[in-house]
Amino acid sequence: MISGTTMLIAHLGVPTESFRAPLIYNPWFESKGIDARVVPMGCEAEDYAAFLPLLFRLRNIRGALVTMPHKVATVALLDKANPAVLMSGSCNAVKKDADGRLVGDMFDGEGFVRGMRRKGRDVAGSRALVVGSGGVGSGIAASLAQAGVAEIGLFDTRERVADELAERLRRHCPGLGIRTGSNDPAGWDVVVNATPLGMNAGDPMPVDVARIDPAAFVGEVVMKQAETPFLAAARARGCMTQIGADMLFEQIPAYLEFFGFPAATSDELRAISRLTY
Amino acid sequence: MISGTTMLIAHLGVPTESFRAPLIYNPWFESKGIDARVVPMGCEAEDYAAFLPLLFRLRNIRGALVTMPHKVATVALLDKANPAVLMSGSCNAVKKDADGRLVGDMFDGEGFVRGMRRKGRDVAGSRALVVGSGGVGSGIAASLAQAGVAEIGLFDTRERVADELAERLRRHCPGLGIRTGSNDPAGWDVVVNATPLGMNAGDPMPVDVARIDPAAFVGEVVMKQAETPFLAAARARGCMTQIGADMLFEQIPAYLEFFGFPAATSDELRAISRLTY
Repeated sequence: MISGTTMLIAHLGVPTESFRAPLIYNPWFESKGIDARVVPMGCEAEDYAAFLPLLFRLRNIRGALVTMPHKVATVALLDKANPAVLMSGSCNAVKKDADGRLVGDMFDGEGFVRGMRRKGRDVAGSRALVVGSGGVGSGIAASLAQAGVAEIGLFDTRERVADELAERLRRHCPGLGIRTGSNDPAGWDVVVNATPLGMNAGDPMPVDVARIDPAAFVGEVVMKQAETPFLAAARARGCMTQIGADMLFEQIPAYLEFFGFPAATSDELRAISRLTY
Repeated sequence: MISGTTMLIAHLGVPTESFRAPLIYNPWFESKGIDARVVPMGCEAEDYAAFLPLLFRLRNIRGALVTMPHKVATVALLDKANPAVLMSGSCNAVKKDADGRLVGDMFDGEGFVRGMRRKGRDVAGSRALVVGSGGVGSGIAASLAQAGVAEIGLFDTRERVADELAERLRRHCPGLGIRTGSNDPAGWDVVVNATPLGMNAGDPMPVDVARIDPAAFVGEVVMKQAETPFLAAARARGCMTQIGADMLFEQIPAYLEFFGFPAATSDELRAISRLTY
């Protein structure tokens, strides 16, 4: 029940229609008697830099979940960026600290890697292609790098964006092999779609699925449906796959800790979730 | 259930802790399967002029309920003010029209007058003292004037504010008798506390209760508890009284119509409300 004492977690992005987090967080808060709610706010990119600071001046704001297209833009609005933000250049969680400073962190990559490990896949020493170097792709690439992949491939139709991410990763992980400029999935152990392709019916595939190694692990960030056409095609080739919601479920425990809520496991969150595709 | 398709009605004011509207609107929306929720947002007075326009740029905003201390400040932020706003100089409801213009209306006074009439009291021809000429007091005074009171008394510790309200009422209701400068309730048929006195324990009485006519109708805008000490004292004198929540219930049907939701009666809203003092 929302009341005058309810603390808000703003869920910031557009379009809001594909948001899934409220269907997990809010049943969790309700079941635990926590007087907080995740509230989607469809903020336009052009308004975001003005809106975020004002949002955090509300007396009943507890934090923000940040999603497309604001993850990169958020970094410049923070007073303090945690290590995952510095490395990825992207932020998906914001809170105010005791001194009133805006603090940001990034949990997409952690969620992706935790999900891989739960499925029994080794990350360390593998070779991973991340297609899309925007907010979520940057976070995944950074976490894969930190988890010890031997080589990482970065691709974005905006070449400069992929090159800048490569530069940041080189600074933080000097021994990491980095390749840019190709989205050919042949020869990679891990292939990730971190583009919005799949959000709209009729979107093209993010990579040439026929060239994915059947032994590869294929992950997805799009959450509009349980299994996107891309994942279905990869699964048909024999690949082990990870849906977007897996990344989401695996990162929420880190989010809850960041916001100062009682701990939860991803299994507990799955049990209570009202996410139905 | 809040989801990515939920339309927001922002409830704007501070402090939020005394807000009661979410406990009425949200059970109503749920029971009717309407994908909208009232969400309290504790916006500070100094941020409001910047925050309101940005709030209305969100893709999923449907409207705003405006309360203390923003009702008067809202008027200057509107593109179009409905008649009750022009007359009262106060606004408690904002929406965007088809052309993207911010349109404001004011329903407090209508709620107060409807509540009086439901209790069988005549408004026309009576003499009414409204103590407090801020947002809600202005709205009540304007509606009482429109409903045909013979004379109205306006009092505010900020004299200029009461005088400006008197001036607006004179312009819109040329035949109305208006007195300002005294909060002595003796001789008035209707006495309204439209100040925040009563929101905090130990607040002084808004008027000298011992001088209220036992035949007077005594109303209240404070909603923090069902019966404020002021109303309890008036009732002890034999007065018929109206609690703050009555004004709220009686105005919500007008609000719902303004926002374009299906019609509801105040009795239907009372039946589903989770307001428990």
